[in-house]
Amino acid sequence: MKVFTEISALRAYLKDTKFNAARSGQHLSVGLVPTMGFLHEGHASLMKRARMENDLVVLSIFVNPIQFGPNEDFETYPRDAEKDLALAKQEGVDVVFLPSVEEMYPRPTKTTISVKELTAKLCGASRPGHFDGVTTVVGKLLHIVSPNHAYFGQKDAQQVAVISQMVGDLNMDVQIIPCPIVREHDGLALSSRNVYLSPEDRKAALVLSRSLQQARSKAEESEHVTVGELRQEIQQMIQSEPLAQIDYVEFTQFPGMIPLDDITSLKDSEEDVLIALAVRFGKTRLIDNIILTKKGVINHV
Amino acid sequence: MKVFTEISALRAYLKDTKFNAARSGQHLSVGLVPTMGFLHEGHASLMKRARMENDLVVLSIFVNPIQFGPNEDFETYPRDAEKDLALAKQEGVDVVFLPSVEEMYPRPTKTTISVKELTAKLCGASRPGHFDGVTTVVGKLLHIVSPNHAYFGQKDAQQVAVISQMVGDLNMDVQIIPCPIVREHDGLALSSRNVYLSPEDRKAALVLSRSLQQARSKAEESEHVTVGELRQEIQQMIQSEPLAQIDYVEFTQFPGMIPLDDITSLKDSEEDVLIALAVRFGKTRLIDNIILTKKGVINHV
Repeated sequence: MKVFTEISALRAYLKDTKFNAARSGQHLSVGLVPTMGFLHEGHASLMKRARMENDLVVLSIFVNPIQFGPNEDFETYPRDAEKDLALAKQEGVDVVFLPSVEEMYPRPTKTTISVKELTAKLCGASRPGHFDGVTTVVGKLLHIVSPNHAYFGQKDAQQVAVISQMVGDLNMDVQIIPCPIVREHDGLALSSRNVYLSPEDRKAALVLSRSLQQARSKAEESEHVTVGELRQEIQQMIQSEPLAQIDYVEFTQFPGMIPLDDITSLKDSEEDVLIALAVRFGKTRLIDNIILTKKGVINHV
Repeated sequence: MKVFTEISALRAYLKDTKFNAARSGQHLSVGLVPTMGFLHEGHASLMKRARMENDLVVLSIFVNPIQFGPNEDFETYPRDAEKDLALAKQEGVDVVFLPSVEEMYPRPTKTTISVKELTAKLCGASRPGHFDGVTTVVGKLLHIVSPNHAYFGQKDAQQVAVISQMVGDLNMDVQIIPCPIVREHDGLALSSRNVYLSPEDRKAALVLSRSLQQARSKAEESEHVTVGELRQEIQQMIQSEPLAQIDYVEFTQFPGMIPLDDITSLKDSEEDVLIALAVRFGKTRLIDNIILTKKGVINHV
């Protein structure tokens, strides 16, 4: 496994490798797994999928400052490069890209990639500027690595929708592959931020997956159930947990991200329905979601 | 010469050609000349330069709606695909990309690439949204063609600065090559919009190059001359032409595009100095510019 910290060296290596493959008549396919590190089994599932589908797997590890708000956790975001490299090796990653902030932003960027409408609600509303930071850095990484496929976790469902929109609108030559949420045995969605949780918070946080699970059951029982009814149930269940403080409980079409209002019944949505939650436990903000498909329910919680 | 109207067909052709070159051990370099068509000798100079420096030359012709304001000349912008193709062939272009608006924007784009600061003045101020349209479409074209080099005329000096900034900030893997302004024998900078000019306007428009030429002479005589003195001379000369209506006469550092105020003397600029003009003759808005280098004057008018 090769580790690069410099863009130019990574690019030269990837170009050489592709060129040499082509010389022997092989189309080398490259899969990129972009991460902020502190890797867990969710990331491992992305690496596994990339490993299956590509000749060369690139993992990037970069805590991207421009997607954090001024009062967010950029400084304290958990980092453990050594452990990350060990996991990457174990998952058969070929190349790790581990740049410094100075390498990615040698000068403050004057250029921003923005996606409108899809970013108006959910984390886009709670975290102003967040998605501009995400799309800009993902654009940079795609330009640096030129992958055939890029793998993203469905836990950040809005991010998947936003990046897919960007790639389509800008004719970026890459296929975005969303991968299912990975959960602990008790249902907690894996997140690097779970390490922030006290044992009490950790236990309280199970209310997220539990409330989504209940909403799923309800939706399976009756397709006439309205968004308002489901929203109220979820909110009540979360509010019954004293340590939980709701940031949002939102229902949108997916991947169009068009908000559904309370009087809509699930069957009237033109696209699949995303139920997305953001809830604080102390200073830790967790997100979770489920997608109810038009033909049943995927992403089982 | 091959002509493509579809992105997928163009992309497949370029990939095949590169792959086949690599199979025989050759690194194929691709030069892109992005234009809005109605080609003139200015464009021809870009194609010539691209022809010299690349194995494969791609010319794109696309009048990009999203860089025109609602009251601008998108509908009436001159078009002549047949003549353009003949000139492209004559200049040894290998591939012409001639997409429809529907091919480039099958749905209204929700994604925008924006460059701040450099776009605040000059045409960015006179034409709100213009540069977002330019950077977004150039980003799309770069993603579609993946060129090694892209060629732009220095007549749109601010555009050159903005695109170079975008490419650097977003780690796009392409070298931007600015090419000198091409002029008629009497000094008028070539522009597709020159066809709009009546014979009287055409004659009056010579005041642009004449005033820049005079500013250059003045700057060569004394490096202590101030921006304010030069600006006043240029303005007076243009205002002496009854058919001319000034949009702007601006002095900025180049390529940083930081405006210089009137009390600055030319020698105090940290970078080269761009003098940029936009002037209306009837409904036709023309631009012209000159760059005064720290070590003399380039882009002679």
